[in-house]
Amino acid sequence: MSKIIDFQTDPSKYRHWRLEFDGEVANLYMDVDEKGGLFEGYELKLNSYDLGVDIELADIVQRLRFEHPEIKAVVLQSGKDRVFCAGANIRMLGGATHDHKVNFCKFTNETRNTFEAAAADSGQFYICAVKGTCAGGGYELALACNHIMLTDDSSSSVALPEVPLLAVLPGTGGLTRVTDKRKVRRDLADVFCSIEEGVKGKRAKEWRLVDELVANSRFDETVQEQAREFAKLSSRPSDAKGIELKPLDRTFADDGSVLYSTVEVSVDRKARRATIAISGPGAAAPESMDAFQAQGSDAYMLRLARELDDAILHLRFNETELGLLLFETQGDPELLKAHENLLLVNSEHWLANEVLHHWKRVLKRIDMTSRSLAALVEHGSCYVGVLAELLFAVDRSYMMEGDFDGDNRAIAAITLSQSNFCRYPMGNDLTRLETRFLGEPEKVAEAKARIGEALDACEAAEMGLVTYAYDDVDWEDEVRIFMEERASFSPDAMTGMEANLRFAGPETMETRIFGRLTAWQNWIFQRPNAVGENGALRRYGSGVRGTYDMRRV
Amino acid sequence: MSKIIDFQTDPSKYRHWRLEFDGEVANLYMDVDEKGGLFEGYELKLNSYDLGVDIELADIVQRLRFEHPEIKAVVLQSGKDRVFCAGANIRMLGGATHDHKVNFCKFTNETRNTFEAAAADSGQFYICAVKGTCAGGGYELALACNHIMLTDDSSSSVALPEVPLLAVLPGTGGLTRVTDKRKVRRDLADVFCSIEEGVKGKRAKEWRLVDELVANSRFDETVQEQAREFAKLSSRPSDAKGIELKPLDRTFADDGSVLYSTVEVSVDRKARRATIAISGPGAAAPESMDAFQAQGSDAYMLRLARELDDAILHLRFNETELGLLLFETQGDPELLKAHENLLLVNSEHWLANEVLHHWKRVLKRIDMTSRSLAALVEHGSCYVGVLAELLFAVDRSYMMEGDFDGDNRAIAAITLSQSNFCRYPMGNDLTRLETRFLGEPEKVAEAKARIGEALDACEAAEMGLVTYAYDDVDWEDEVRIFMEERASFSPDAMTGMEANLRFAGPETMETRIFGRLTAWQNWIFQRPNAVGENGALRRYGSGVRGTYDMRRV
Repeated sequence: MSKIIDFQTDPSKYRHWRLEFDGEVANLYMDVDEKGGLFEGYELKLNSYDLGVDIELADIVQRLRFEHPEIKAVVLQSGKDRVFCAGANIRMLGGATHDHKVNFCKFTNETRNTFEAAAADSGQFYICAVKGTCAGGGYELALACNHIMLTDDSSSSVALPEVPLLAVLPGTGGLTRVTDKRKVRRDLADVFCSIEEGVKGKRAKEWRLVDELVANSRFDETVQEQAREFAKLSSRPSDAKGIELKPLDRTFADDGSVLYSTVEVSVDRKARRATIAISGPGAAAPESMDAFQAQGSDAYMLRLARELDDAILHLRFNETELGLLLFETQGDPELLKAHENLLLVNSEHWLANEVLHHWKRVLKRIDMTSRSLAALVEHGSCYVGVLAELLFAVDRSYMMEGDFDGDNRAIAAITLSQSNFCRYPMGNDLTRLETRFLGEPEKVAEAKARIGEALDACEAAEMGLVTYAYDDVDWEDEVRIFMEERASFSPDAMTGMEANLRFAGPETMETRIFGRLTAWQNWIFQRPNAVGENGALRRYGSGVRGTYDMRRV
Repeated sequence: MSKIIDFQTDPSKYRHWRLEFDGEVANLYMDVDEKGGLFEGYELKLNSYDLGVDIELADIVQRLRFEHPEIKAVVLQSGKDRVFCAGANIRMLGGATHDHKVNFCKFTNETRNTFEAAAADSGQFYICAVKGTCAGGGYELALACNHIMLTDDSSSSVALPEVPLLAVLPGTGGLTRVTDKRKVRRDLADVFCSIEEGVKGKRAKEWRLVDELVANSRFDETVQEQAREFAKLSSRPSDAKGIELKPLDRTFADDGSVLYSTVEVSVDRKARRATIAISGPGAAAPESMDAFQAQGSDAYMLRLARELDDAILHLRFNETELGLLLFETQGDPELLKAHENLLLVNSEHWLANEVLHHWKRVLKRIDMTSRSLAALVEHGSCYVGVLAELLFAVDRSYMMEGDFDGDNRAIAAITLSQSNFCRYPMGNDLTRLETRFLGEPEKVAEAKARIGEALDACEAAEMGLVTYAYDDVDWEDEVRIFMEERASFSPDAMTGMEANLRFAGPETMETRIFGRLTAWQNWIFQRPNAVGENGALRRYGSGVRGTYDMRRV
């Protein structure tokens, strides 16, 4: 698995999904091309999926929000007979490296979360119409929808057979959504997760595994009726016109760097570090949302979000040995302030709403990235509002204080906007500033009182907005020592430490999926009972069951 | 590590701790005997600890509550010069099997939680007086106390050096208590957890790592003053007399079974199953708390709690290949009802309070036991109140329905008491019934309306209190098939599944420690960067740093 994995796609390239539009309803058919695996060595039988299938799905969910404001309900269904979806492809999982497995699960989890986000943030509801076998990751797709309908045809069923069949967990949110979203009684959940063949008919409804059981003869019709009912609940505009998400302006260089229009990723392999340099806007903000809409995906605020998102995914999957991601910005703070402000004052506008929520997701993607994250606030930088939020997403931040010899850029400053206090909550449903100041909540109010002011290093450090402020004498050494030290630590310990320190405070279904469920799954993904020569994942399909070390830990 | 680990001890056997009583204050000195390791191959230098040290500590905390009602504040301090505690012994950890490491961490976590429980449930406050180096598990001991005092002597410090030094996490609640209890700002927590030498003096106070910084010359005196101040807040009685916790009546048999006065553990190694058979009371309940106090630790409700707790710990550590723990009870429900009721109506009495809270902890210990748990409700059984609670702690329950051929025991029934609705909350702060019925909260009220009634299988199944009810025709096969199936699953997948399904609903600091933090630590405990030949845990003390695979996952 050494080729570059590309997260950019568009409808002309889809191999695994079909989308049909019917007024306010989109019918999304999963119809996986067996021969279309992202890597060699496996066939995607029975609508099983690999990362390539999920990259297309993520693209579809994103485009439905930006390109199709008229779509208020999406019906997820199978394009194949007798099978809904068999889940993640087992041969792919059996052959994948540990880091690919973990990153694959994280990306698929993030994509499942976008189903729920589409309804919550944008009034675009997902209805799952289950006909045929719906197992493992297939049922986890259903669980991420707002409403699950099962046909009553004596063979269609839902199942989480991972534990008995593969000795791993239903790790794409399955266990958590069963207990926390669908609130299935725990002993019934225990039974359900132990039955290879799953549960069908009335029992599936009684156990709360599906929302509706529908007579097979009326299934398709009832599904479309239900979708139209959901559409009525939506606040999405009926008369708006979508914007096209155009291909990113992106160049991969031989040295590993990636150049976008607003983001430059440069890579220092020896130091195990990537620098993500963000440029502020190059022109004035659009004067109105009409003007913004006319710019479409070229509008700075949307363009930057998409480029940053792509860069993070690229680094996660294609640069696994880089332990530290270092954020830098340069640009005109006043310009950026105006660009973000247009969205904030028009947040009721469907497109402004979409762009702001996309930023929320990009920032969450950064939170969930298991690399050490740091930010440098240098002279000339542009940490305003949404980019200031980066400072509260990273593990540590360093800020230049006072004049630096030979540096005539504008003195480093941070400017908060109202967005830092509401628009970009973390997975724990708190803002990053609320999470940061759990122990000193008065600091949030103090910061709020300074919205719009350019805060210099002295003020920012005093207010607790940055970790360190250094002057010309100390800056270079301190930053260098930090980066060297960080690169020397065990990556695993860093991953575990950051997964704990970043998410203080309350837990939500989302944080539980990425915290508790994922951590246990990652543990199991290391255990010989699953991934060893005789483990269940390796032996799957061989006709021989896994051989287990029976010691409990 | 094949000898039987014994969790029973008493003050006459302590090798690592000293306790001095001064009115309402107990001074607890950690003074670890270097030569007193539980196993061969390491010395417990610098007040480092192994399981043996922690078994004594758990015993002390327990006895302080039962034997010393007059003690209102406990000062945890070092009996050695220059070092408070260096944490868990690294050579012990480096040489331990994975399952011992995991079980060791779980037990030490449970013991740390009892510090906090002593204050919350019983008004017995823990004050930590830090002089000298307080590192890793040493600082985690401090973090579990209600108040941390640090001497300002230019060398005493607190530290969590696990990540830089050992490539593992501060896993005994360290990371979680730093973010969630002490609410240290996350970037400062990141810095703190990366500094081998730790933080001292003013900075420790400023970063919220300690509560008080005290001039060295006045340290001992100020600590005792502070302890007396805490004692004033306590609701513990000043005039009550404690009861002695006498040695358990316990016999180990050659076949692995363990016989207590009220509990019989029998072991079927081939089937990988232990049966925990509980006998109801053999005599009428004491007539008053005075009579209960006169019986002391022989009183049924306390005796059973202690025996059951010991049995669970024994099975966790000494019988690692048994995957299923099967609970059974036999006895007179009316008698048990009276025994529990005496405590419930006298819950303001200090000793009744202690016994009920001990039961809460025993039930939590069962929740946290990573074995599959099931209960059989057979004819003649005695599932009332506290023992009915077992049915809501297990993963599944099976109940006999109707007459069984040749069985003339009383028809199986379950009797709820008010205790099932308030006295024994889980780690998530909900009752087990609330957790069970998260999706159908009305069922909790329905159950509450039936307090005191003997509910037969038909009613119990209808009310959702048991998983399955079977009659004479099906019972034996169904129970057998379940047990065989369970024994065939991968233990690791079971551990992960149960850790997710058992704890639906809200999270607390406690569930986060056992869920998120522990799961990540267990993952790291499998990774070559920590435990491989060249990993940091193995290389510790060799003068050579660990060699790491730098791939991030």
